[in-house]
Parts: sequence; C-alpha cells; structure tokens
Amino acid sequence: MPGNSFGELFRVTTFGESHGPALGAIIDGCPPGLELSETDLQYELDRRKPGQSRYTTARREADQVRILSGVFEGRTTGTPIGLMIENTDQRSKDYSTIKDLYRPGHADFTYDKKYGFRDYRGGGRSSARETAMRVAAGAIARKLLKEQFGIEFFAGVTQIGPHSVARDSADFAWPQVHENPLFMPSATVAEAAGEYLKDLLKQGDSVGARVRLEVTGVPAGLGEPVFDRFDADLAKALMSINAVKAVSIGDGFAVAGQLGSEHRDEISPDGFLSNHAGGVLGGISSGQTVIAEVAFKPTSSITKPGQTIDRFNQPQTVVTRGRHDPCVGIRGVPIVEAMAALVIADHWLRQRAQNGK
Amino acid sequence: MPGNSFGELFRVTTFGESHGPALGAIIDGCPPGLELSETDLQYELDRRKPGQSRYTTARREADQVRILSGVFEGRTTGTPIGLMIENTDQRSKDYSTIKDLYRPGHADFTYDKKYGFRDYRGGGRSSARETAMRVAAGAIARKLLKEQFGIEFFAGVTQIGPHSVARDSADFAWPQVHENPLFMPSATVAEAAGEYLKDLLKQGDSVGARVRLEVTGVPAGLGEPVFDRFDADLAKALMSINAVKAVSIGDGFAVAGQLGSEHRDEISPDGFLSNHAGGVLGGISSGQTVIAEVAFKPTSSITKPGQTIDRFNQPQTVVTRGRHDPCVGIRGVPIVEAMAALVIADHWLRQRAQNGK
Amino acid sequence: MPGNSFGELFRVTTFGESHGPALGAIIDGCPPGLELSETDLQYELDRRKPGQSRYTTARREADQVRILSGVFEGRTTGTPIGLMIENTDQRSKDYSTIKDLYRPGHADFTYDKKYGFRDYRGGGRSSARETAMRVAAGAIARKLLKEQFGIEFFAGVTQIGPHSVARDSADFAWPQVHENPLFMPSATVAEAAGEYLKDLLKQGDSVGARVRLEVTGVPAGLGEPVFDRFDADLAKALMSINAVKAVSIGDGFAVAGQLGSEHRDEISPDGFLSNHAGGVLGGISSGQTVIAEVAFKPTSSITKPGQTIDRFNQPQTVVTRGRHDPCVGIRGVPIVEAMAALVIADHWLRQRAQNGK
Amino acid sequence: MPGNSFGELFRVTTFGESHGPALGAIIDGCPPGLELSETDLQYELDRRKPGQSRYTTARREADQVRILSGVFEGRTTGTPIGLMIENTDQRSKDYSTIKDLYRPGHADFTYDKKYGFRDYRGGGRSSARETAMRVAAGAIARKLLKEQFGIEFFAGVTQIGPHSVARDSADFAWPQVHENPLFMPSATVAEAAGEYLKDLLKQGDSVGARVRLEVTGVPAGLGEPVFDRFDADLAKALMSINAVKAVSIGDGFAVAGQLGSEHRDEISPDGFLSNHAGGVLGGISSGQTVIAEVAFKPTSSITKPGQTIDRFNQPQTVVTRGRHDPCVGIRGVPIVEAMAALVIADHWLRQRAQNGK
Repeated sequence: MPGNSFGELFRVTTFGESHGPALGAIIDGCPPGLELSETDLQYELDRRKPGQSRYTTARREADQVRILSGVFEGRTTGTPIGLMIENTDQRSKDYSTIKDLYRPGHADFTYDKKYGFRDYRGGGRSSARETAMRVAAGAIARKLLKEQFGIEFFAGVTQIGPHSVARDSADFAWPQVHENPLFMPSATVAEAAGEYLKDLLKQGDSVGARVRLEVTGVPAGLGEPVFDRFDADLAKALMSINAVKAVSIGDGFAVAGQLGSEHRDEISPDGFLSNHAGGVLGGISSGQTVIAEVAFKPTSSITKPGQTIDRFNQPQTVVTRGRHDPCVGIRGVPIVEAMAALVIADHWLRQRAQNGK
Repeated sequence: MPGNSFGELFRVTTFGESHGPALGAIIDGCPPGLELSETDLQYELDRRKPGQSRYTTARREADQVRILSGVFEGRTTGTPIGLMIENTDQRSKDYSTIKDLYRPGHADFTYDKKYGFRDYRGGGRSSARETAMRVAAGAIARKLLKEQFGIEFFAGVTQIGPHSVARDSADFAWPQVHENPLFMPSATVAEAAGEYLKDLLKQGDSVGARVRLEVTGVPAGLGEPVFDRFDADLAKALMSINAVKAVSIGDGFAVAGQLGSEHRDEISPDGFLSNHAGGVLGGISSGQTVIAEVAFKPTSSITKPGQTIDRFNQPQTVVTRGRHDPCVGIRGVPIVEAMAALVIADHWLRQRAQNGK
Repeated sequence: MPGNSFGELFRVTTFGESHGPALGAIIDGCPPGLELSETDLQYELDRRKPGQSRYTTARREADQVRILSGVFEGRTTGTPIGLMIENTDQRSKDYSTIKDLYRPGHADFTYDKKYGFRDYRGGGRSSARETAMRVAAGAIARKLLKEQFGIEFFAGVTQIGPHSVARDSADFAWPQVHENPLFMPSATVAEAAGEYLKDLLKQGDSVGARVRLEVTGVPAGLGEPVFDRFDADLAKALMSINAVKAVSIGDGFAVAGQLGSEHRDEISPDGFLSNHAGGVLGGISSGQTVIAEVAFKPTSSITKPGQTIDRFNQPQTVVTRGRHDPCVGIRGVPIVEAMAALVIADHWLRQRAQNGK
Repeated sequence: MPGNSFGELFRVTTFGESHGPALGAIIDGCPPGLELSETDLQYELDRRKPGQSRYTTARREADQVRILSGVFEGRTTGTPIGLMIENTDQRSKDYSTIKDLYRPGHADFTYDKKYGFRDYRGGGRSSARETAMRVAAGAIARKLLKEQFGIEFFAGVTQIGPHSVARDSADFAWPQVHENPLFMPSATVAEAAGEYLKDLLKQGDSVGARVRLEVTGVPAGLGEPVFDRFDADLAKALMSINAVKAVSIGDGFAVAGQLGSEHRDEISPDGFLSNHAGGVLGGISSGQTVIAEVAFKPTSSITKPGQTIDRFNQPQTVVTRGRHDPCVGIRGVPIVEAMAALVIADHWLRQRAQNGK
C-alpha cells in the first residue's frame, strides 16, 4: 500500500502539495446516515489555518473546503466522501535560491534521495500544508464519534521551550486552550510563552513544543492485538504528523522509573483507582480517558543562517526568508485531535465488525 | 485487516497463546534466494527466551523453532515461510483462583470487554510469549538486511528504575550488552541495577525500564509519507510490544525544549554535522544512524497484593504467585531489535517497488 | 479496507456520484519521473465519454480532467496524483417518479438494503459514470507500461446479441476497433450490429455484449500466488466493472471440454507453441499475450415497461425515460483496457519489490 | 501485501509446499464465541483429499488438521486460529528427470521466471496440495455462516468433457453430488462421465470440467462497490483456485446474447420474479440465491509425451509418471465452496462494520 492512506475501515487518503492547485482527500468507509455539511469541517480547519495570530505564518489561505461526493440531502450515503481545498495563495515566487538546496531539518535531502527529484515550491508534499486534509477528515470522524459515543477531544500545548504547565497544576484548565492563540491550557503560562516567542521571532529562531491529548468517552474494547493495538495505531497516527519526534501513552517515559506496585492501576467495583496506563491495557481501550503526549521539534525554517549543501554536494549557507511559525507545535493541536479521532473511528468500526456493536 | 499481521510487503502474521499447543508465524514477502536455516533464528530466540538468568521468569521453554515451508535447498524460495514453536512447558495448573479475576495492569479486563471471554491460562494471547514469533520473524529480516546493506542493530537497557546510563557517558559501550544478563551497555550500571533488582524481587515488586536502539547502515530513502513514514511505522512497531508506553526518535521529548538553530542538523559535503533527528527527515530515512528509545512499564505480575474486581464486579485481592520477570524491559531488547528489523525490511521492499533499488 | 480502492502498490481510490459536483481519484504509488499531462488522460476519457455516437446516451459531459497534484514540471513526483472531473451536465430534473422505485436490473434495491437510503439521482454512485475515473487512472498505468515494457492493449466488442466475430475469422482485425462506433474488430459485423441496435432502440430495448482483450508485451513473472494471482486479480478487476457478469482467461469455459493433451501449451526453444492458457500459468504471467474475455449484461434502463416494487413494497410499473446506451458493453471497451492496465502496473510494482526488476 | 492472504476482515493466510514438512494457515478475524473443533474441519478436508476414488491421485495423505490456537474451551476466542497439516506422504523420490524441465501447462516455467529458482518436488507451492488449507479455512467460515444466517452451499460438477447436465434438466438433483465420486448432480451423467474417465486414464490423458455453485441464505447488502463488489471478490476467489480459467455469475456469458427486457429480473411484492443476475445487483448481494460457475482446465500431468524445454532452453520430451487426477475439477468442488464461504464471511464482517448488523 502506498503511504498516503490512513485507517483500515474508516480510511482517509490524501493528496496535495504546498503550491499545487489543490489539496484533497477521500474518506472511504464513513457509515451512512451521519448528518454532515461543509460547516462541520470548517470550524476545525479554521483552527489549523495559517495567519490566525502573530505566532503563525503569514500565508493567507481561505482553506475553504468543498464536499464533492458521499453526502446526499445532508447525510452521508456510505459512499466515499471527496474533499477539496483550492490553494489560493500560490504567489509566484522565485525559488531559484532554494531549488537546489537541502535546507537543514527539512525533507529536501530525503525527498531527493527517495524520488530522484522533488517539487521544491514551499516544501511540496512535505509541507505541513498537507495536514489541512487530516483536520478535515478528522472533523468527520469527530462528528461521528460525538454522536455515537459522546466522545470529546481535549488537546493543548503544555510546553513551549522553557515554559510548561503540569497536568496537576492548579493553573491547568482545558477551557483556556480556546482563550489564547498558543492553545495552552493555562493563561499565565500562555502569557509567558507568548513573550518568549516574540523574542524568539526577533532573533529569527524557533522552538519545540509538547502537546497533551485527552479523549473522554472512548468505549472499552477498541484495539486489535497483537500488532494493531489501539496505542500502537495511535502512536503511528501521532508520529506521522510533521515535526513530531516522540509519542507517549499514559505516564509515558516516566514508567521506566516506576515500581509495579505504583504503576498498575488497581480496580474497584466503581472503576479504576488511577490511570497510569492512559486508557489502554494490552493494546485495548479500557474505557478510561485516553491520554497521550507528543513532542514537536522546532520549526526548521528560521532566518538564522545555516550550513548545508546543494544537490551537487557543494557547501552552501541557507537563510529562510518570509515569516514562518516560530513554534509548529501550536498549530499541531487540531492535527493531534484529528489523528486521534481517525484512530478511534477506525478501531470502532473494526471492533463492530467483530461483535456487531 | 485483523490485527495479527505486521508489514505491507515483508509481512508477518502470528498466532499462539501462552498455554496453547504452539506458537506460529507466516512470513510472506521475503525475497527469494536468501540463505536461511533454523539456526539463524535460534540465536535471537535464545536471547529472548525465559529462564536465562535470575532476572527472568523460571518458565522453561526450549523455544525450538521449525521452518515448515518457504525454504528449499537452504534458500528462501519467495513463497511464504511457515514457522512453529511447540509450547513444551504447559504444566497443568490450577487457574481457578484467577480465571474470573481482572489482574491490575494486565489485559484481563480489556480482553473480556472486547471478546466477551478469554483464554485465562497465563494471559492467553496477551502474554509476552507471543513475542517469540516477533523475534523469529525479525531474525529473518535481520539476515536479509545484513546481507543487502550491512545493517546492524544495537539495543540495550539504558535505565532500570533509578539506575541509568547516558549515551554520551564514558561508561556507555554497546559490546557490554552481551556481557551482562540485564542487556545494559554499561558494566557498572548493570551491576548496580542487578543489586537493585535482587532487592526488588525480595520485596515482591517490579520496575520499569528504558531501552535504546541504534541501527546503522540504513540507506537513505526509506519511508512512505505522508502516513506511512519511516518513523511512524517504527513508532507503531515499538508501541505494539507488550508493556511499551512511549517511543521517541532522535532527541525525542527533549525537542520540546530545543531551539530551531540547535535542533536542525546542518549538512556539510562530508555529511550531517549532528543527528538530533535520529536518522529520519520528513518521514524518510536520511542514511544516518536510526535512533529510537522506548519505555517499558513495570511487570504487572507481582507478589504484592493488589485490589481488583472479578467478572461479577465483586471486589477481590490479587496476588500473583510464581516467579515473574521483575523487569520486562530486559527481555524486551531482542524484541525491539526484531520489530525495527521488520520495519526496515518492509520499507526497503516498498522503496524498491518504487524505484527498483 | 472500504471498497473504493484498487491495487496494492499502484493504488487507485475513486469518489463521485452521477449527479454530484464532481468525480475524482487519487493514484498513489505511481513511480516518480513519468512524463504526464492532462492530455495523456483525455484521449482515453474521450473514448469512454457519452454522447459520442447514436449508440450511446445523450448526456453531454466534457469529461475534462484536471491533475491537481503529484506532477511537477511535467513529470510525476512519486507523491499521490489527484484527479478531478467536474460534472457539468447535472440538469435539474424531477426524480419524484423514481426516487422510491427499485428499477429492475439496477442497484436501487441493493443500495437501499445495504446503506438504508441512497442518492437516487441518475443511479448515484452505482452509475457507470464512476468508470470515468477508472479510465483516467488506467491511462496513467498505460503510459507507464508503454514506456517501461512497450505493453500494448487491444480490446473490442466481439459480440452484440446475435452478431459476433470469431478471433480466427478472416474478418477479424484489431485496427477496425478504431473505425466504427461500436468498437468492433470487424467492419462487416459492426455494420450488421449497428443495424440491429437501431432496431433495438426503436423497440425501446437493449442487448448484452462480449468484449475481448489482448495485451502484448507483458513480461513473465507477474502475479503473486496463491491468492493474488495475476489472473485472479484480472478477474476481479474486470468483474468489478458495471454490468460485467463473466470473465474468462485464455480458452475460458471451453477448457471444460478440452483434453489435457490439447490444452497444455507445449514449449520449444523458440517459445510456446500455442496459447490456450491466455498468458498465465500457475497465476503468473508467462510472457505470452494475455487474453481475457468479459460479458456485459444488457442495459437495464429501457423504455419497455417493467414490473417492480417501491420502498414501501408496493407493486409499480417502471419505464425509463430519456436516451440510454442500448448496449453498455460498447463503452466498456476503454474501461476493460484501463482495468487491465491497473492490474499489470500493480503486479509489476509488486514483482519489482521482490526482485528489484 | 504479498499474495498468500485472502480476505479483509475474515482473513486467511496460508503456507506450505507439496513436499515440505507441513501445510498451515492462520485465520485472523474470526469472531469470538463460535463453537469449533478439528472435527468441523475434517469433514470438508476429507472430501478434498486425494486417494478417495479411482478418479483421483493415489497419493495417500491423512490430511489430519490440528488447531494450534484461537480456540479455548471449544469456542473461538477472537484471536488468530492457527492450523497445521503435516505432510505424511513425502516419499523420497528421484526428481532428477524433472528438476530442470518446464512441464507444459504447469507453473514450472513461470515460477522460475518469477523467483529465479523453485522447489520442484511435486510442484512445490504451485501444487494443488495448497488448497487443503483453503478447505480447512473455508470450513470455519461455513460453520460461522450456517450459524449466523443458515447459509448453505451447493456445488457440483456439471460438465466433464462431453458429458454435461443442465441446471433445468429433470435429471439435475443436488443431493446426487454426495452419491457419486465425481460430485455430479446427476446419477446418469455421472455414470457416463465415469466410463469416459476410465477410458481417458487408459489413454493417459485428462479432461476439463465445469463446476456450478449455488449459495442460499446470503443476506442482501453484502459487497463494497465500486471495486470490492461481492461478485468481483467472488470472481477473484474462484479464479485463484488452481486450474480455473473462467468464472461467471448468474447467466454468465449468455448475457451477451440477451435483451434487456429478458435479462433484468423484475420484482413483485413477493420478491424477484427471476434470477438472471445470480443474486448480485450493482456488486451487492440481493438476497437471492448466489449463482456462479467456473471452468477447470484439464490436468497438465498426463502420461502422453509432450514437447518442452529445460532451464537451459534445450528441447526435451516430458512424460509424467505416477497416477494423477484425470480431471482436477472433481476435487475442485469443495474448494469452490470453501472460497465462496471465505468471500461471504469476509463481506458479512465488512458490512457489519458499516451498519452494525
């Protein structure tokens, strides 16, 4: 299977380059009967889209999505849903300075090694622009899961460089995510991180981020051991997002320092007494809140000069012009939610195939 | 697709329960012409098998693998390779005390929720016994990759509870992994961790671990963006191992605190000047050493009593009898290598389909 | 996997309903470097499109295809190719007479049973309009195979009701297919069949057809036994075309009456001495011409009244208004070629993954 | 995906060569809770196994199947079911006369072209011996479908060379299939065909056959248009059986001569008035009896000398020694039923994923 599809039964296939005519996706396997309109998708797309704040790239995209098939009289028909977003901001630009360069931290080098050549305009297929379609497809999954199970997604930036907020901090509040342009679940940390980013922009540098995800309402029983475990597929989904370098479930790397008597979540007739596992046991959802964290690397496009080579193996210095997100993790928040939704929708259908529920 | 297969073109499908008659696997897609014998598989299986040291379960298994097909006159034929290991140590045992219990930290609860009932003998399919077939299949992939590209796998336990060794420590040496029963790349840390584990065994407790993986010789160009990225599939492969709760690539979670100017690996005509990325850029291998880390949770089977419920939602106390690994991460080392080998073999074939190399 | 994708490595996913805004496809897995433009696709699309002769439906569609991604500077990049055709002829029409009817021979009944409701405008997803995207995708595969191996596709209508032409008839000539609107490889039979169809149109009836396919230049070695045989995948590909009810390879059903000494194709140092097998042995291409035949059922939309029921299980009489193809097999010719091309391209890549060639 | 798996959700993967140590299969995706024992599989295996009558090869195989996993306390657990049959009749034999020969009609030539070399003992993987595992897996699917829907499979040989029985003949009776060693649904035709085969054996020749399949009780709604149609997957399943050269659904190739007014199955409030479609409309099952036919080519292994070449392109004469089935279509009957059962089980689970039923 080529690599541009995700999911087994709720299956998304995407296409599109940063500066091509359009982005698109086909969602195949969405059950019939779901009420769906373009408005349902647009809200999430708008959260991801560039140009929303001083902390995101200045590129102007309407990111207006069209549903081209699979919906009739306001409801999904069970046939594939075609989506398209026209790329409107494809300013003709001079790429002569970068077309032969391998920008450090970017996929220029590896795309050339893999395919022999590449669409160098704005990163081509390797651009984060591709994630718009993940968000659009994820919005369909979210609507389905909301209606079916009341599943809710909470995600936010819990660390930007030196500024972080702990989950058990008094300062942590999910609703805050919608109150600041950094999508942080803490007003005070968001403010400090905002100041930090302003400085960083002046220096022409960027910084990494950590994003936390919690999903409530996931029914027990999702996940297909031994390879297609719920957590394994979630790890793949999240690691497939541009710039993500680490994924953890529940207590994550901290478990390496925990005792068995400390980690195992005991159970009472009223339910689990703790949630170190992050809602997954043996690769199957337990009905507890699903918890995951991911780390986004710093944006590679910075104005600080960097040393590199070109296609002809000649040493070059690269400076990225134009405004770029100083912290790609911020716009990663809706993408993290979208990918988690795709995993859950897919595993729900896989489970329903097995037991009819 | 049900969940017991891994890989698209180098595809492994496994079966087998802890206390069933046998474990088995089919490897479909191994190219023809590879010299292969049972001996090639046995070495890795022996590393994983129980009863090797005081730190692993006392269960005695020969773990003797048979090749049932796909090899003729000492070479693979291109047809599917059938493997089988008979379970020899299936002592008749009284399961009446645990058959209705949901042992905390185990998959008992979730298997019951998913399937309606379960094979409760030794954990059934959710037992780590299943990983023997991963190791056997991985050994085939390793041989293939060694011959084709000279790829080498290095993995070891870098943390056991409070005892850890840093990669840049003078004390860190890969060859040490083969010199101590904890598979640690440091003699001194292994000794301290060994003492620690002895105490833990006396207390009837267990502890988590961190395992580091480095793979050299991986050619540039492997990975299928945008979803089947090399790192995304590696994350899935590693997260699918029993007890793994976190996976990182390159600098992992540390990237959330890094600057762009610090993280991006600059390039000179002689190659990359650093490897924060861990050998993957844009989801495609860069030719640098592939670096990953995983965290194993502590063994859930401990002799310290724990609170739980049974199938009838009645409160119960559970105490796991018999000797269990105090640290499952130790035997995880060959499994981590095996899963990485399966990912690389699979992506190599996927890449070869595209460009013939 | 939902059902709107075809192929493992050269993978096509389509969307679109008869009267929706657009049809589309994503071709994922096309190797990089192939020269490709919209013109390459348009020629085949024009052969399939309606309104070309008196024997096809009067629906007017430009069937103008756009390439939305995956091609840069005139060559494929290895990233997914997005295609779109806008539906231009969606005249607002009154569907009140048929929206609740199950037209005999159509998929109305089964779509309702499967999905609970359906897009009844022009057959929705079950319309042959969907095949436009097969032809567009197939055109890419054809170009690839032509360049790589010089593979050529020959297909034509060899039977329309009582009018047929035998392969060994003196009258049979492939070039004739391009000389008559019935795509028949015989001028005289085409003329007779044309007269026959004119009568049929007057009677408001339709007729079935047989299409023969020959593909030259297919290299030996394609096909993945035991299930994904070359002939098995070809059978699936052809049977998946609207209205096809039978598929044969080589001598087809005639083999039931043949002796072993008659059927087996003997071999000399100069090659095979006959081709009863139709170019496939043991599920693998032999290097001989690949030969297949398919039967298309008569168009179900006819003006002769038919007995049926509606959604409420009430008896109804149905009469299909408007002009429809009296013989859907005719426009099936480019679709048969396209599907065969998709199978061959896919199996070539699968074979190349195994042996690098 | 390599080629030794069949099905998306009820997925069978097989291994094994004619003269290797064993045949095996993994059935992944069988829902939990089905009562299953080796006895359930053995009945169908015994119908297929060699040495049952004078009309089948003399090879003696117990074909004793073992269930190695996935069943606990007599019921399937939802985990993969491992099956194995040891090859007992692997007489050491001298293959020196055929190891370099390409036997006409066999896969020797194509396996060599594909893989570079082959296991030449008894045809290796290309031997019909592989089909034992299809029958074993199919028996599980049949049991599931019988319990769930009361689905019944009827298949029989309707033509052997010049001897055939029409479906509407007074002489046609399904129960007869179990009364004669030719699995023919007519006592008189079976007797005549038996005499014919005896003569053929004396002449050292073989003959083709036609097999008809009818499946009752298939619910409406199975099949995933547009590519994974019910009939398309059935065509693939049947064409993937050794020696099959043609597959038809319903009226098959006869539709090329039918009128629309004749073919379309009209509907009354009491159901369909005819079944030309063979139980499939628009690629989705209609609830009517599913009807298919296949043609088996004559056995290629005959004692009549044949002209061929060896690996070194030298002309050779081949004579197959030992007793072989004079008509492979006979033992094809249980295989046809098995493959149909796999398709139906798979599509049922796919449909259940979509609508929960």
